[in-house]
Amino acid sequence: MDVKVSIINIGNELLLGQTVNTNLSWLGTELAFLGLPATKAVTIQDDPEAIRTALSQEWQQSDVVIMTGGLGPTKDDITKAVIADFFGKEMEFRPEIWEKVQAMFAFRGMATPEINKSQAMVPGGFEAFANARGTAPGLCFKDNGKLFFALPGVPVEMKYLFGEYISDILKKAFSRKPIILKTIHTWNTSESALAEKLSELRIPDEIKLAWLPQTGRVDLRIYGSNEWQINELHDNIQALASEYVWGYDGDTPASVLQHLLLEKELTLAAAESCTGGLVGKLLTDVPGASNYFAGSLVSYSNPLKQSMLGVKGETLEKSGAVSIETALEMAEGIRKEAKVDIGISVTGIAGPEGGSSEKPVGTVCFGIASGKGTYSGKTVFTGDRNGIRTKAAEYLILSTIEYIRREL
Amino acid sequence: MDVKVSIINIGNELLLGQTVNTNLSWLGTELAFLGLPATKAVTIQDDPEAIRTALSQEWQQSDVVIMTGGLGPTKDDITKAVIADFFGKEMEFRPEIWEKVQAMFAFRGMATPEINKSQAMVPGGFEAFANARGTAPGLCFKDNGKLFFALPGVPVEMKYLFGEYISDILKKAFSRKPIILKTIHTWNTSESALAEKLSELRIPDEIKLAWLPQTGRVDLRIYGSNEWQINELHDNIQALASEYVWGYDGDTPASVLQHLLLEKELTLAAAESCTGGLVGKLLTDVPGASNYFAGSLVSYSNPLKQSMLGVKGETLEKSGAVSIETALEMAEGIRKEAKVDIGISVTGIAGPEGGSSEKPVGTVCFGIASGKGTYSGKTVFTGDRNGIRTKAAEYLILSTIEYIRREL
Repeated sequence: MDVKVSIINIGNELLLGQTVNTNLSWLGTELAFLGLPATKAVTIQDDPEAIRTALSQEWQQSDVVIMTGGLGPTKDDITKAVIADFFGKEMEFRPEIWEKVQAMFAFRGMATPEINKSQAMVPGGFEAFANARGTAPGLCFKDNGKLFFALPGVPVEMKYLFGEYISDILKKAFSRKPIILKTIHTWNTSESALAEKLSELRIPDEIKLAWLPQTGRVDLRIYGSNEWQINELHDNIQALASEYVWGYDGDTPASVLQHLLLEKELTLAAAESCTGGLVGKLLTDVPGASNYFAGSLVSYSNPLKQSMLGVKGETLEKSGAVSIETALEMAEGIRKEAKVDIGISVTGIAGPEGGSSEKPVGTVCFGIASGKGTYSGKTVFTGDRNGIRTKAAEYLILSTIEYIRREL
Repeated sequence: MDVKVSIINIGNELLLGQTVNTNLSWLGTELAFLGLPATKAVTIQDDPEAIRTALSQEWQQSDVVIMTGGLGPTKDDITKAVIADFFGKEMEFRPEIWEKVQAMFAFRGMATPEINKSQAMVPGGFEAFANARGTAPGLCFKDNGKLFFALPGVPVEMKYLFGEYISDILKKAFSRKPIILKTIHTWNTSESALAEKLSELRIPDEIKLAWLPQTGRVDLRIYGSNEWQINELHDNIQALASEYVWGYDGDTPASVLQHLLLEKELTLAAAESCTGGLVGKLLTDVPGASNYFAGSLVSYSNPLKQSMLGVKGETLEKSGAVSIETALEMAEGIRKEAKVDIGISVTGIAGPEGGSSEKPVGTVCFGIASGKGTYSGKTVFTGDRNGIRTKAAEYLILSTIEYIRREL
């Protein structure tokens, strides 16, 4: 029988969009590792009626309810009173919690404000866990095999209490196989074309395959608890879609390229125009990039393309800055200037201005130059300025991976 | 009477913690601007039973329900069938949507896979909105003054459909006083130092002041619906903290710099090392950057600093690549090479490797060179590789703003 786990996050800032709910993604990851994936998450306002309604609905539907937020020294009274009332308990004073709170303030060389006394009030029959990262204790209530937890919303306090207490309680209450996740990264195909390729695939009932569209590419994520089945599905996808696969799990385009270049002992430099430095930024996101990456020339203006890369004025005039011809001269130019094995380049129109009927916004040209020859490409990306730039930079890096695998 | 707005986000990856729910924070912000703040948000699994339960609960409790996710062309997308069934509708084929989907594939020079035909199936009585950023249309159903929307989960598609259609429908259906948000961007101060500066501030009960720490700087956000009170608080903060303020609302360091340079008709180029291209990327995030920005040389290796920037071998040997001396020669070098008014530079140790006791990880040196002289600085940032790089790039841009305001 599946264990149903609901998370309730209390916080107006989450609903007003001022804070991204990273507590949910953190808890989601931890619960998956315990084999108890969250089945539902609810974000509500810091308001007694909203808390009562959500608590009532989730407690009825789920085996485990984890609530975060609304436990600070000023809010405390509301959330805890609603919880006590919902479970039919009276509040009681816990001297051992009060001592911990006082000790925490003493450690900081401060007197404990009276307002913090409310932190030691706990609904009867609840366990209270001392919070070594703050003053609000974690709360736990067990009823008929069901479990309720209330944790502070401050991430560092929530994480501490979950790791120190909640995780073990869940492990003991439900012994589950951890969830295994495997990701296959693809590119150069649409979600639907890939789906057609994989339409013959048999997916066991206990295994899930999720399609995660990224900007300009698709990730396939396999998960479940049966490792053998997961590996088999992984191999089958790999066999059917190998031409589109560029990496696995935590790989990024830049990390795969770096691995390949270090293995082959090759050096690389880039010449960028429309991406404005993003190619270099992505490549150097990976520690150790300096072992192969000499640098990048962001030649945003035409004079710079000529003076620092040696692109011919004639080429710029005849074919334009956004052309395969210019891209190739940029790639060859940076290869020579930086004295590296491979020069790569990208030039395009990121928009919103600058497009024409012949070269619409999104038109991007690429060049790769190595000792063994050159490669070039032209494509049109859709999206806004940011999307076009991201797709262009990743496309260049992924094309380079493919070129090296094929040619070098 | 308050309008109750529920958001339902469908996606196993959100519950498994693999994706942070940025759709919620984006929608939350937009809804607040419309004066219709989200009252509840629910994240559920991509599973018919879960979708039906959430839809039933939220439709009963709320006036507006916005559902995202589960609308892609692949097999696991069962959302539309559940929606049609819940509202008691039959699915019908909409040729105009099918034409748009085919046109989108044709634009990319691809044949439309048959599987995409399902995208043109829409529950009867629903409005369907063409999606210019993808293939899944947005859906809308009106019933007794209540509104239901279903949008794809891909952020760029969701944002497009909300901005193009949903926002106007909501504005017309409920005319609300919008929540006014004003943001003041500060830097070069800690949160606590700023708090001390502002300790005398009187904040009216109906207005909220939120402290939003960014990577290496602090944003102050004022919000409420009384414009007069908001403006007064805004002016008071401005008066108390003016020395730390660099921008307002949607400003970025790069947009403020661009505005300043265009106003003064100055051109600029950059030489970057540890930031790997991030400075150029940030500057060119702003459309129109080509009107002042010539380019950036990412000289990740020392030979490139010498050959393309003219940094002296002696300087690199004596002072090291990460030094004020090298930073200044980089700034002067790129100013000369790119023939611009202002050259700016950054060189540092982003880590995790490469630190020493004399120059720990996080050490960053900056240079600015103009016709009126030079400016340089050295600082040590804390954080991981990504944090150090972000802080270094923004620090250089913000220092350049200050330099231009002071000197040029």
